[in-house]
Amino acid sequence: MGDISNCSNGINNGNGNGNGNGNGIHGNGHSSVGGYRKSCWYEEEIEENLRWCFALNSILHTGVTQYQDIQLLDTKPFGKALVIDGKLQSAEIDEFIYHESLVHPALLHHINPKTIFIMGGGEGSTARELLRHKTVEKVIMCDIDEEVVDFCKSYLVVNREAFCDPRLELIINDARAELERKEECYDVIVGDLADPIEGGPCYKLYTKSFYESIAGPAGVFSHIEVFTCICNTLRQVFKYVVPYSAHIPSYADIWGWVMASDSPFTLSADELDLRMKQRIEGENRYLDGKTFTSASTLSKAVRKSLDNETHVYTEKSARFIYGHGKHNQA
Amino acid sequence: MGDISNCSNGINNGNGNGNGNGNGIHGNGHSSVGGYRKSCWYEEEIEENLRWCFALNSILHTGVTQYQDIQLLDTKPFGKALVIDGKLQSAEIDEFIYHESLVHPALLHHINPKTIFIMGGGEGSTARELLRHKTVEKVIMCDIDEEVVDFCKSYLVVNREAFCDPRLELIINDARAELERKEECYDVIVGDLADPIEGGPCYKLYTKSFYESIAGPAGVFSHIEVFTCICNTLRQVFKYVVPYSAHIPSYADIWGWVMASDSPFTLSADELDLRMKQRIEGENRYLDGKTFTSASTLSKAVRKSLDNETHVYTEKSARFIYGHGKHNQA
Amino acid sequence: MGDISNCSNGINNGNGNGNGNGNGIHGNGHSSVGGYRKSCWYEEEIEENLRWCFALNSILHTGVTQYQDIQLLDTKPFGKALVIDGKLQSAEIDEFIYHESLVHPALLHHINPKTIFIMGGGEGSTARELLRHKTVEKVIMCDIDEEVVDFCKSYLVVNREAFCDPRLELIINDARAELERKEECYDVIVGDLADPIEGGPCYKLYTKSFYESIAGPAGVFSHIEVFTCICNTLRQVFKYVVPYSAHIPSYADIWGWVMASDSPFTLSADELDLRMKQRIEGENRYLDGKTFTSASTLSKAVRKSLDNETHVYTEKSARFIYGHGKHNQA
Amino acid sequence: MGDISNCSNGINNGNGNGNGNGNGIHGNGHSSVGGYRKSCWYEEEIEENLRWCFALNSILHTGVTQYQDIQLLDTKPFGKALVIDGKLQSAEIDEFIYHESLVHPALLHHINPKTIFIMGGGEGSTARELLRHKTVEKVIMCDIDEEVVDFCKSYLVVNREAFCDPRLELIINDARAELERKEECYDVIVGDLADPIEGGPCYKLYTKSFYESIAGPAGVFSHIEVFTCICNTLRQVFKYVVPYSAHIPSYADIWGWVMASDSPFTLSADELDLRMKQRIEGENRYLDGKTFTSASTLSKAVRKSLDNETHVYTEKSARFIYGHGKHNQA
Repeated sequence: MGDISNCSNGINNGNGNGNGNGNGIHGNGHSSVGGYRKSCWYEEEIEENLRWCFALNSILHTGVTQYQDIQLLDTKPFGKALVIDGKLQSAEIDEFIYHESLVHPALLHHINPKTIFIMGGGEGSTARELLRHKTVEKVIMCDIDEEVVDFCKSYLVVNREAFCDPRLELIINDARAELERKEECYDVIVGDLADPIEGGPCYKLYTKSFYESIAGPAGVFSHIEVFTCICNTLRQVFKYVVPYSAHIPSYADIWGWVMASDSPFTLSADELDLRMKQRIEGENRYLDGKTFTSASTLSKAVRKSLDNETHVYTEKSARFIYGHGKHNQA
Repeated sequence: MGDISNCSNGINNGNGNGNGNGNGIHGNGHSSVGGYRKSCWYEEEIEENLRWCFALNSILHTGVTQYQDIQLLDTKPFGKALVIDGKLQSAEIDEFIYHESLVHPALLHHINPKTIFIMGGGEGSTARELLRHKTVEKVIMCDIDEEVVDFCKSYLVVNREAFCDPRLELIINDARAELERKEECYDVIVGDLADPIEGGPCYKLYTKSFYESIAGPAGVFSHIEVFTCICNTLRQVFKYVVPYSAHIPSYADIWGWVMASDSPFTLSADELDLRMKQRIEGENRYLDGKTFTSASTLSKAVRKSLDNETHVYTEKSARFIYGHGKHNQA
Repeated sequence: MGDISNCSNGINNGNGNGNGNGNGIHGNGHSSVGGYRKSCWYEEEIEENLRWCFALNSILHTGVTQYQDIQLLDTKPFGKALVIDGKLQSAEIDEFIYHESLVHPALLHHINPKTIFIMGGGEGSTARELLRHKTVEKVIMCDIDEEVVDFCKSYLVVNREAFCDPRLELIINDARAELERKEECYDVIVGDLADPIEGGPCYKLYTKSFYESIAGPAGVFSHIEVFTCICNTLRQVFKYVVPYSAHIPSYADIWGWVMASDSPFTLSADELDLRMKQRIEGENRYLDGKTFTSASTLSKAVRKSLDNETHVYTEKSARFIYGHGKHNQA
Repeated sequence: MGDISNCSNGINNGNGNGNGNGNGIHGNGHSSVGGYRKSCWYEEEIEENLRWCFALNSILHTGVTQYQDIQLLDTKPFGKALVIDGKLQSAEIDEFIYHESLVHPALLHHINPKTIFIMGGGEGSTARELLRHKTVEKVIMCDIDEEVVDFCKSYLVVNREAFCDPRLELIINDARAELERKEECYDVIVGDLADPIEGGPCYKLYTKSFYESIAGPAGVFSHIEVFTCICNTLRQVFKYVVPYSAHIPSYADIWGWVMASDSPFTLSADELDLRMKQRIEGENRYLDGKTFTSASTLSKAVRKSLDNETHVYTEKSARFIYGHGKHNQA
């Protein structure tokens, strides 16, 4: 879609907004009632039978990488949205819910997290949240798609500072290959990719003290797509596994994460709040101790599936989710 | 998603699963890639800038009442769906989340709930959940739209038994007018209507021992539409107020409820589970003690807004939500 | 939008226009345009980048055959619509344009058409138009999909009489195979299928005195998909070839047909009108002499492509159209 | 979808599929089949029950004028498209059909057209076609919305030359007011606005020798919206009236124009071709003698309505069309 990029110059905030000029002397019956309908839309197929559509302000940037198509859209309901291969990756107004939930629980439960490895994470938001931790000395972001990283570096203003942080080291490679190749040990490994095959835990990882698994849909129905399976697989690998979830408005679903370790997770809500105060620069917008307590207490329906789940990811077996949310992220 | 294919009634088998029907000798390139796209859709405007679309199996029934248009649709992702004035009211596969959450917490916290008044509730699902309580001797459903009640009586098979229960008494009237008219006292009053004006607590009600307020969107963003306001208003009226929330997939949002009383809510998760066992016929699919504990522990963002909310509903002032979910239900 | 924010109050009685139903006390902002926005839609992908959507009244019937999925929809803009494999085949309010144009020109130009062979035509409308000709003694409809024929027989009321006409003989077979198998000679052969491969003339046919080819899009742009190619191929086979076209509103395009023979087409508009009077029962709604004169005088752009077309259909080579209109009809 | 790309006829080059980018190692089941679906769309409500949707490459420019909202979109099926108040005004790939049909017939039938007045026409395409006539010495474009004119001047490259032509004079005013104010007489007046009220002929105009009325939908069904009414009204005002029509793909309909004068229209197709050769710079893409002959021979259905039309536009009475095509153009 190279032809798009030359045309991309989105400067259009709230077109069709407010002015009521739909009612000028040339107004017709349609525009004379509350303005004409929105005419430009982003449409995502959450499932084959389910669509989610955002009115568009503009198409800010588009690009094509070796692996994927990327778009940065300016949407009316969710602000700037990163779209890869036609799937929403993250949206300006609620990505903080996703990334605070992905990053902080594992780091806070660790005594003293210094070195972090991100599987994927090219968008930069995961690194941004990690780098808020005062204890963190080194963050390795290992993403397979350099052009996605460059795209996000140039256009996602909110992560610019993180991309420039001297503690961040970028490696372009397949995350698992990289982990298997290296002898190094990390305090925490964060999986910021949702492809269930890669999401399935790498058995080489159980020497690591902490592992924050990749996320997946965790709604009353959607959780059975991959979430229970990721949990169950991590249970085979780690002594202690804590699944938790949160609603991401722009995904139109509950999202779930799994935190796993060989040491127990024993912090109370208040202890979490205290550690946040001590260790994290700035204030979280979404996550605090109470929020995590609630997030890690799953509903009856989801707990039931988790108990009954028998499927385990292996190199060969994997469940797929219908391209959704961070599904395609490199 | 097996659970979802369960509710597709098989009318349209060529549902893009590569079954080959889309792909006969006349098949074209389009249908040869996993079946042609769905061609019939239900489309709802959740907000002016946000749409939610379900593939359709069929349009089962349609009707027009004195107040509203009603449709019973058979949707692929959410099964049979009741739509009033173009807004989804409830969907076969997840209405249990809404109605279990609306009904059971208040009744379980009451020592011995015998007489219940439903403001609205013409759909019948709220009555159905109430009547599962062994202590309940009388349920008065007061809905303004008789034809909606009749429509649901004839078409919502799942509620047929409830509609026939001798303990159910149906009154066609405006719920508030009815409550103000009568001298009677009820053990619990359930507001099964989302119109904020009607949802705003009726001051005549604070003599009642329990009041279960109407619900509203309670997502990280949407909760400020009406939810915090309902909470705050009830705080002016009742000594004890407990807001809680749950994700309703077919609403594409978190929904919130408020439980209010002049006696404290002190039950633990285990005590709730015990009472459910003792008092409720059959098993809940969504709600149990742990689920309620989690549901009533709101996220940081929502708690913050609740603390800062100053707006109070009065006869004159009210906030409105963009027609959504149960919004239009009589 | 200033004007919208008035309507962003979910109940919006404010928006005037009183379609009572959409606009009772629960009326919403969309009532303003003849009731709230339509919520059920039929959506067709005319091309990958172009969609055509009709508001739905209902989904009347659906079925699955050995070859195809069938739906009979009740659409608001075009009445009852026959949809096969997700593509509109014909719509109640304008199929007469298609079928009058397909059938009458060839029959009228023939001295005395008695025996007609329809390649495809399972819908029955082509037979219906043919049987209006007093000279016609026998119509053979050869369709490969018996269940489509049965479906149309039961549900397309407008063709019921035709299906019962003793002059109609139904054969379930591949039309070309059937023509090649049989020794019989027909006065006119009508191709009522749009699959270009089958649309490409069968070389066995040039002994027949008349041949009415299958149609295809014939718009200023779309005509190059198959129309010029069909024309050009027929030019290799027949001495005289007359392409003509008409706009079919429900197809959102101009449609084209080709009439071919080894005897010249010499009738004037008045002579055509006279023959219609003499030979056709009832009055045409679309076609008359002048209409045909205009229809067979193509625009400069289309004539140019016809002159420049060099591609010829063979068993091996064929152009395809993006599933559209009668594309999938057996 | 190889067959499909065969049939993409240059209209949609940037259809982003088949580039394999949707198939990187992160590709999912959906994107792995010939590219994921288009995700950005322009959607137009042709009627309340009928929608027309174009895949978007980008939103090039947007603006708000005193009267209207303007957008310049880059659409996949129709190229750059000018949208005013949410309605398509003209599209890059087929506006030539509209403007050649609007301008040339009237000018060619005039003996020696020197001074032309355009009612509206701010887009510039009408002026562009007029200025191709060697006889034309002065073109007055009278549009009410200066900002639309400026927007088109800056962004519609194809009309840049016309906007700079010394023979073009721009007046910002209501076209009718201007015509009534001035004493001047013009050889031809072209109405390039589709608001039926303004489209209704101004009685002050019948002294002018030629009048080219505004256009309107002229499909087998849509022509009764305004087209027959415009014709009938002009019949009251001028001795000779010639209606004609053409299909505009991006409007999804046939469009009609009316040419009126007090001297007869007697040119044959060949005479028209000759005059085009003599008078018009460059070659027409759509219109020639034969095309006009066909275009001015209307179908039976439309002729019938024209004969039966009794409605006449006056200052007070007017019919409206559902905002469509050039409806809102200033």
